[in-house]
Amino acid sequence: MIDISQLKFDQNGLIPVIVQDSSTGKVLMLAYMNREALELTIQTGYMHYFSRSRNKIWKKGETSGNVQKLKNLFLDCDGDTLLAIVEQTGVACHTGNETCFFTTLEGNGEKIATDIIFSLMETINDRKQNYVEGSYTCYLFEKGLDKIVKKIGEEATEVVIGAKNGQKEEIIYEISDLMYHLSVLLAYFNLDWPDIFKSLKERMK
Amino acid sequence: MIDISQLKFDQNGLIPVIVQDSSTGKVLMLAYMNREALELTIQTGYMHYFSRSRNKIWKKGETSGNVQKLKNLFLDCDGDTLLAIVEQTGVACHTGNETCFFTTLEGNGEKIATDIIFSLMETINDRKQNYVEGSYTCYLFEKGLDKIVKKIGEEATEVVIGAKNGQKEEIIYEISDLMYHLSVLLAYFNLDWPDIFKSLKERMK
Repeated sequence: MIDISQLKFDQNGLIPVIVQDSSTGKVLMLAYMNREALELTIQTGYMHYFSRSRNKIWKKGETSGNVQKLKNLFLDCDGDTLLAIVEQTGVACHTGNETCFFTTLEGNGEKIATDIIFSLMETINDRKQNYVEGSYTCYLFEKGLDKIVKKIGEEATEVVIGAKNGQKEEIIYEISDLMYHLSVLLAYFNLDWPDIFKSLKERMK
Repeated sequence: MIDISQLKFDQNGLIPVIVQDSSTGKVLMLAYMNREALELTIQTGYMHYFSRSRNKIWKKGETSGNVQKLKNLFLDCDGDTLLAIVEQTGVACHTGNETCFFTTLEGNGEKIATDIIFSLMETINDRKQNYVEGSYTCYLFEKGLDKIVKKIGEEATEVVIGAKNGQKEEIIYEISDLMYHLSVLLAYFNLDWPDIFKSLKERMK
């Protein structure tokens, strides 16, 4: 049971909650909870927030269906911010975007290193559905499973050669190549990287 | 240049900033900026915040050296929260923890799916330094590079067999196995998964 006494609510009785997607690690939104919203969240297992504009508690996804199932809840070192790791149904943002943070103010718009895996899978799944002239990914899907696994064998061998050459740049390049072809195989079987990460987690226990 | 007019500062002239690590996707902390802290951050490229307790602007890492280099800055859909993607030097938390969110309130303490890759690399790097009786990872390092790459060839072949069997569970299991052995190879060459993700990103352009 949560020890609520550790939490520092602000002068309005609220605490900010950072909401992060458990599969992708993407930061989805920042919302606020009062004590009751927190209790409802813990009791039901689904995220409830306090709306500062509407001045009332709301269950995320109540009307849209885009609910957030609580997986884990963390408190920060000074007790005044929560981090909720959630399983997001559909998209988090009311604009239809995956995350509320879609406006770039500064920088090249890149988020986190691991995002690349998910962008890559999106592109591969799109190529699987829609033929694009000159696309290597489309070519692989057209050729089919034997071609895809043949490439996996080939790329793994190139990783071995790179390693035996002791060349870091070559190793990085060949493992990237292998990761791409493994992604195509996953997409072929309607699988995704979180399936692999879950399996790795199970086996590390 | 940032269009500051899009930002909604609160009644105290502050806006909350979620800080996320660009390599690992870990949420490091929540801090606040006033307009000046934001301008200093943009000008210098390093995160500056406004301390509500000390009532002044501070540069993160000014005394500890654990600075945060700004990579990307996002604004949320309603303009009242920032998401900063940073390159963290050392650790983010003043307690010596990697992130300020190290206290579990609810759940099993698991964060995000992609974290597993980084936990796995931590364990592998630890086994590389410290011998643990009965550890398979230690056995691989002891046997050396030829053994490691031999296993990569073997596991890649098992992925191919799993795919030809059309068994999703087998494919997941064998790709996980391959990922583990690729992680050992990366550790052998003092490389890490962000090197691979960066390479994939370069090539997707």
